[in-house]
Amino acid sequence: MRISVLGGDGYCGWATALYLSKRGHSVAIVDSLVRRQWDEDLGVATLTPVRSLAQRLETWRAQTGKRIECFIGDITDYEFLASTVRDFEPDAVVHFAEQRSAPYSMIDRKHAVFTQVNNVVGTLNLLFALRELRPQCHLVKLGTMGEYGTPNIDIEEGYLTVEHNGRKDVLPFPKQPGSFYHLSKVHDSHNILFACRIWGLRATDLNQGVVYGTMTDESALDEALINRFDYDEVFGTVLNRFCVQAAVGYPLTVYGKGGQTRGYLDIRDTVRCIELACLHPAKPGECRVFNQFTEQFRVLEIAQMVQAAGEKLGLDVEIDHLPDPRVEAEEHYYNAKHSKLTDLGLKPHLLSESLLDSLMNIAMRYRDRIDQSLFAPQVDWRKPHNRRHRTMVMTAGEGVGEAVGLP
Amino acid sequence: MRISVLGGDGYCGWATALYLSKRGHSVAIVDSLVRRQWDEDLGVATLTPVRSLAQRLETWRAQTGKRIECFIGDITDYEFLASTVRDFEPDAVVHFAEQRSAPYSMIDRKHAVFTQVNNVVGTLNLLFALRELRPQCHLVKLGTMGEYGTPNIDIEEGYLTVEHNGRKDVLPFPKQPGSFYHLSKVHDSHNILFACRIWGLRATDLNQGVVYGTMTDESALDEALINRFDYDEVFGTVLNRFCVQAAVGYPLTVYGKGGQTRGYLDIRDTVRCIELACLHPAKPGECRVFNQFTEQFRVLEIAQMVQAAGEKLGLDVEIDHLPDPRVEAEEHYYNAKHSKLTDLGLKPHLLSESLLDSLMNIAMRYRDRIDQSLFAPQVDWRKPHNRRHRTMVMTAGEGVGEAVGLP
Repeated sequence: MRISVLGGDGYCGWATALYLSKRGHSVAIVDSLVRRQWDEDLGVATLTPVRSLAQRLETWRAQTGKRIECFIGDITDYEFLASTVRDFEPDAVVHFAEQRSAPYSMIDRKHAVFTQVNNVVGTLNLLFALRELRPQCHLVKLGTMGEYGTPNIDIEEGYLTVEHNGRKDVLPFPKQPGSFYHLSKVHDSHNILFACRIWGLRATDLNQGVVYGTMTDESALDEALINRFDYDEVFGTVLNRFCVQAAVGYPLTVYGKGGQTRGYLDIRDTVRCIELACLHPAKPGECRVFNQFTEQFRVLEIAQMVQAAGEKLGLDVEIDHLPDPRVEAEEHYYNAKHSKLTDLGLKPHLLSESLLDSLMNIAMRYRDRIDQSLFAPQVDWRKPHNRRHRTMVMTAGEGVGEAVGLP
Repeated sequence: MRISVLGGDGYCGWATALYLSKRGHSVAIVDSLVRRQWDEDLGVATLTPVRSLAQRLETWRAQTGKRIECFIGDITDYEFLASTVRDFEPDAVVHFAEQRSAPYSMIDRKHAVFTQVNNVVGTLNLLFALRELRPQCHLVKLGTMGEYGTPNIDIEEGYLTVEHNGRKDVLPFPKQPGSFYHLSKVHDSHNILFACRIWGLRATDLNQGVVYGTMTDESALDEALINRFDYDEVFGTVLNRFCVQAAVGYPLTVYGKGGQTRGYLDIRDTVRCIELACLHPAKPGECRVFNQFTEQFRVLEIAQMVQAAGEKLGLDVEIDHLPDPRVEAEEHYYNAKHSKLTDLGLKPHLLSESLLDSLMNIAMRYRDRIDQSLFAPQVDWRKPHNRRHRTMVMTAGEGVGEAVGLP
């Protein structure tokens, strides 16, 4: 298949682009490289020494003989986005090209507004581009399990059969997202569902859980293919961050009681899920929702697993319970369904000691690059603006102005 | 009370500002006057000869001795919006300041993106301004009954008690909006609910039905206080438009079968509902939802009532069934609850022959201003871009650029 990966320079996007290319698909990466800029703005960096996109693509070609096409630009710039659709003629577009950090969106008003405008406009542009230029193309959109929040009922995959006052309907599952970022994904989901309904577009909305891991078979081929490994309080995801903390003897930063339960998956399953969605497209007019995770854990369980793995390596790992900077339930019911991707053939990589060992080894290997001042949470959900200890400049994708018709 | 009316130069906003002023509240209008610009851009005009906002306010003062304060600017410009909150110190902010036409949002990509960015950013700015400067102030936000769509179950006021697999929760009512405009209101509702939860703000989200009528006791005081009366296919609401069509012998433009059922209310009830919401504020942290309409009608019923009223005046009124330019069910179940405002004391003005007569009389009186070329629908939901017969220029509130951090 011909598959565009929007956001293909990012954490999940890069692993996905390589995997799809390896599997024989024709792949194009569409990316503005702004994720690298955000690291600069926030004064943070990935643990791993990520190469430039050009170097990455050259290495991939040298290692495998496979060429990944590349379009550099911002999808909030419609003309740019449309040109990639016209030129590449994708059968599927995998859309990772959004600001994806909850704390980033909660820094202050500008970051909240930027996150929502950037994500909503990019997705709207994509819907219009597909309708105009490629209506049979399948949209594979990355959403998040965080769209659902933590309701006191089982979480279904996108839709809920409701019986009420003797009548019945199947309705979109009610959403209770927990940050301005998660809200942006809820906005996207509503927009996508509508576009499928009025225009007959075909879409799969993947509500992904927390991703962990960094290596995939493809990125392991050459160090120049190494993936991001974010451990800072803004972009770091919890299991990865705990491994880095353990490696340097920093107490694991559990927020509150640690009873927050979420769905998790290995990045090697992310890439497989994406391919499964592409290979089994939604029907015209269908907006299908898959919950993309393989296991549920409480945050404290994750911390305890990392603690045990660290002790096996001779590390002394403490667990710290910090006041929760987020507004969220620290203990709650959580039971989210996730059978649709398994039905399509997903064989999960469950969280194992060997994976924890390998993450810890990566953390040890790049230990010199670890900046411990990036561990502590600095973004408080309760405050309307947060000053982090590093200077930041607000950036907005230039395309946002174009998209809303500004000069 | 001190009440800011954002969008106070518009159709519902102007009537509300006058009513609240008459009732003894201190009122400020905050408006960018962009609604007038959109008329120019689309080549349309209100039936009634609306005066400049300055003339309106001078007339109000001359007639009643009451002064309405006025801030001209765009609420997508945060510094401007914040300055109005600092200067006026409102106890309640009534927020009408959004692009409110479904067809406008469906013209093309630019109008869709503009509608969502304008509405979402304006509301986000307001939430941040209240959190920063006036956390006890009550937000009274205009939503729309169109957020719910037409589910096959009863529509509740904002929240639904769900029993599922033996467990129970009260969740936001699932939304199925029918245009990029209606989607923008759904996005707002999610953002507002979240801000109440994390910051303890107090909000009332009013899901308003289709408003009809134009005269209120206040605007009737002087012709210079006359309200808008939109009858064009973009901004006109259905009952008002039918009355104008009847007045000039143009067949009433029913879309499809006309079985579309919606909630309706008289503009004299809109203003009363707003005051009731202000006088009985939500509690801190509460995001309350009221369904603001008084009666349900099928579109064809509305057409038949207008036909009967026209015939009484000696007019020959035909009903035309046009292909539905919207993607919507032309026959469906609809039963929406609306008891919360009644519980607070609303005494509805139900749709009556005398109201229809008065609307028809206004249409006859300003008959010379009617442009029949504005009746036929020109915006087709199924097309990604629609060319209307008048030239249009895309306008975007300048503040949108500022809001997203652009130069």
